[in-house]
Amino acid sequence: MTLIEDAQNKKANGLIKRASEAENLDEEFIRAGTAGGSIVIPKNVNRKLRKIVAVGKGLKTKVNANIGTSPDHIDIVGELAKLDAAVKAGADAVMDLSTGGDLKQIRKEILEASPVQVGTVPVYEAACKTIAKGKKISEIDGELLFDVIEEQSQQGVDFITVHCGINKDTVEILNRQKRLAGVVSRGGSFLVKCINATGKENPLFENYDRLLKIAKKYDVTLSLGDGFRPGCAFDASDGSQLAELSVLGELVLRARKAGVQSMIEGPGHVPLNQIEANVTIAKRLGHGAPLYFLGPLVTDIGAGYDHITSAIGSALAAAYGVDFICYVTPAEHLRLPDVGDVREGVIAARLAGHAADIVKGVKGASERDAEMSKWRKARNWEKQKEFCIDPVKFAREREKLPPQQEDVCTMCGEFCAMRDE
Amino acid sequence: MTLIEDAQNKKANGLIKRASEAENLDEEFIRAGTAGGSIVIPKNVNRKLRKIVAVGKGLKTKVNANIGTSPDHIDIVGELAKLDAAVKAGADAVMDLSTGGDLKQIRKEILEASPVQVGTVPVYEAACKTIAKGKKISEIDGELLFDVIEEQSQQGVDFITVHCGINKDTVEILNRQKRLAGVVSRGGSFLVKCINATGKENPLFENYDRLLKIAKKYDVTLSLGDGFRPGCAFDASDGSQLAELSVLGELVLRARKAGVQSMIEGPGHVPLNQIEANVTIAKRLGHGAPLYFLGPLVTDIGAGYDHITSAIGSALAAAYGVDFICYVTPAEHLRLPDVGDVREGVIAARLAGHAADIVKGVKGASERDAEMSKWRKARNWEKQKEFCIDPVKFAREREKLPPQQEDVCTMCGEFCAMRDE
Repeated sequence: MTLIEDAQNKKANGLIKRASEAENLDEEFIRAGTAGGSIVIPKNVNRKLRKIVAVGKGLKTKVNANIGTSPDHIDIVGELAKLDAAVKAGADAVMDLSTGGDLKQIRKEILEASPVQVGTVPVYEAACKTIAKGKKISEIDGELLFDVIEEQSQQGVDFITVHCGINKDTVEILNRQKRLAGVVSRGGSFLVKCINATGKENPLFENYDRLLKIAKKYDVTLSLGDGFRPGCAFDASDGSQLAELSVLGELVLRARKAGVQSMIEGPGHVPLNQIEANVTIAKRLGHGAPLYFLGPLVTDIGAGYDHITSAIGSALAAAYGVDFICYVTPAEHLRLPDVGDVREGVIAARLAGHAADIVKGVKGASERDAEMSKWRKARNWEKQKEFCIDPVKFAREREKLPPQQEDVCTMCGEFCAMRDE
Repeated sequence: MTLIEDAQNKKANGLIKRASEAENLDEEFIRAGTAGGSIVIPKNVNRKLRKIVAVGKGLKTKVNANIGTSPDHIDIVGELAKLDAAVKAGADAVMDLSTGGDLKQIRKEILEASPVQVGTVPVYEAACKTIAKGKKISEIDGELLFDVIEEQSQQGVDFITVHCGINKDTVEILNRQKRLAGVVSRGGSFLVKCINATGKENPLFENYDRLLKIAKKYDVTLSLGDGFRPGCAFDASDGSQLAELSVLGELVLRARKAGVQSMIEGPGHVPLNQIEANVTIAKRLGHGAPLYFLGPLVTDIGAGYDHITSAIGSALAAAYGVDFICYVTPAEHLRLPDVGDVREGVIAARLAGHAADIVKGVKGASERDAEMSKWRKARNWEKQKEFCIDPVKFAREREKLPPQQEDVCTMCGEFCAMRDE
């Protein structure tokens, strides 16, 4: 029995208990949400997972950090350092997006080292294997892809991004759109290339039942990927994006029926005034499945600062109901991130999530702000450090220019507004 | 005749012409907005101003950077370096908030060096002079305050923050509120201390006509300060904040009648779901005066990253109609910012403003994103550098980990989604 089946059958399940403890919420709330599909608790049956994290409606907004090698930069030790930095900065999940080096070995080491759930995008490995055989990406074979999915699931991956909404119909719609940036999802672009080059259907869509069977076997959560997510403001919320989303919504229902947990991924680059609509529609078409958004970035010109343009969009998206934020680092659009970028990215995403949690009414969110502000008013710097997002940076920045009087800071000195006369 | 009088009388004025050129908008649009008070163009008659910047409805969202010494850290050369960093990063205005050292000399040097408009908060200097005489802040004398305002105006300051909405009535309301963080506006806290200690009326409110007379003489724009801006999420949008805002709105009308330009300052710390209401009410009570917001910060726990919590709030606020964003740096709540902080703060605020300008339909905003994305799709890195927010950082970050093939980046390498097969 998978977790969702246990939840549907009201059978006691340790994961639900642990998730409810972590959220400080009733077990029945988590069970009902999991049974109905508005909450997922990704965990592979083969995985030893130290931290259980639920994602979904009524819960704290969670943050994922992408790590992994690229063909241009292969350094396992470096990726494990990023994993460590992400977890220490408070990431609730990581995705291993490696596309360079010994992918199986890298994944093994990340799965062993990570205390939090690990996700992957299997089509990356399928693409790497295809290229290694001297073939083109458009020649990715369906059997190979399913073999990769089976092997990764067997290895213990907790959730996988699968671009099942890319099919001949939605690609036809995409091809009619006048997009500026085309397809910017890496995995999505592989599958579009396959369909456009061969005319054959996407195996992840065509053989979705086979995918569900593997997912059920290992209790892998499906993260239904948004291959047509807009990669620039101009392309946001277009026909192909919505058509894909509609397909994903149907697949959510089939997953639930098959005893498989699923969530839906979202954009991307979206102007501020289209974010609410994107969330509302994704929750509607997705039948309430947890939403996992990459951003959205509210402008295209922020390269070097896209953790900020993403924090703006994801705070708003989460306030409207997004459950899971995929971080964006300052290195986005420029290079593979380093450890410092990972740290900045996680903190920025957590701030966005927390700002949304205040609005969502998540237990403890407003209370933490109130504690922070109480101690700020009292000019108690030790206590402030305890409640702020990043105690290490808090202390370091304050020490850079210490005040003459201990109770204030060098911004206002003796003129501190918090001080009584 | 002041600028607003010229605008009201449809008399040609060079400032309006220059502002319309800078915005690429009709001169008549700027004139009408200035006459009606929805647009201000701060410039002191005694000031040689190299760059003319208008602020208000229908225009690009502008960014101000606060610089200035504190009693704990007095370094004129350092402040001039911050001015330079702010202007190079694209600030449209700076405020000299100095409270340490020879304030008149510092201001003189900043006014001479700054190509953009300069604002001040005169009550700071009045407080410093009062303390220097061995008195308490609550003993700030009204005559002294007006002398300071006259001297600063004569020196060429383009706009001044004056907390005229703090009066006996609004302080009484404040005293009844159960605020967590009390008054966090530095200048506001001085005036509240004066009223609470002496029972005497705030001279800036009581003798507002005298203030208008000085402002008119030098054509100084009044930035009507929000002394009761919330300093934490818990205090947001409370009775005292709204009461002060209502008073400020009345003073806007009196300023317009007296031939003086005015804008209204806004919060502060505001949860995401109260931002729209704050902007709508401030535009309404302020009779359409330009809004100049400090943030708002969408959570209290972000110390060390408050340029991000502020960017989230100010992007949203500007999208709803805020015209002028006061930057917040990563040093906020911790210490006086350094040159690096100033740079980060200006860029974060500009990104927020730009994200809002896309939504506001400001000419050129969406177009710039489209250009950026066109060149991103084409993998033309030189052209991307041209259209991104910070070409220096763009180049530096990319060079940190250069790709093996020039047309992609090390994130995806040969698997770049932008590439055709």
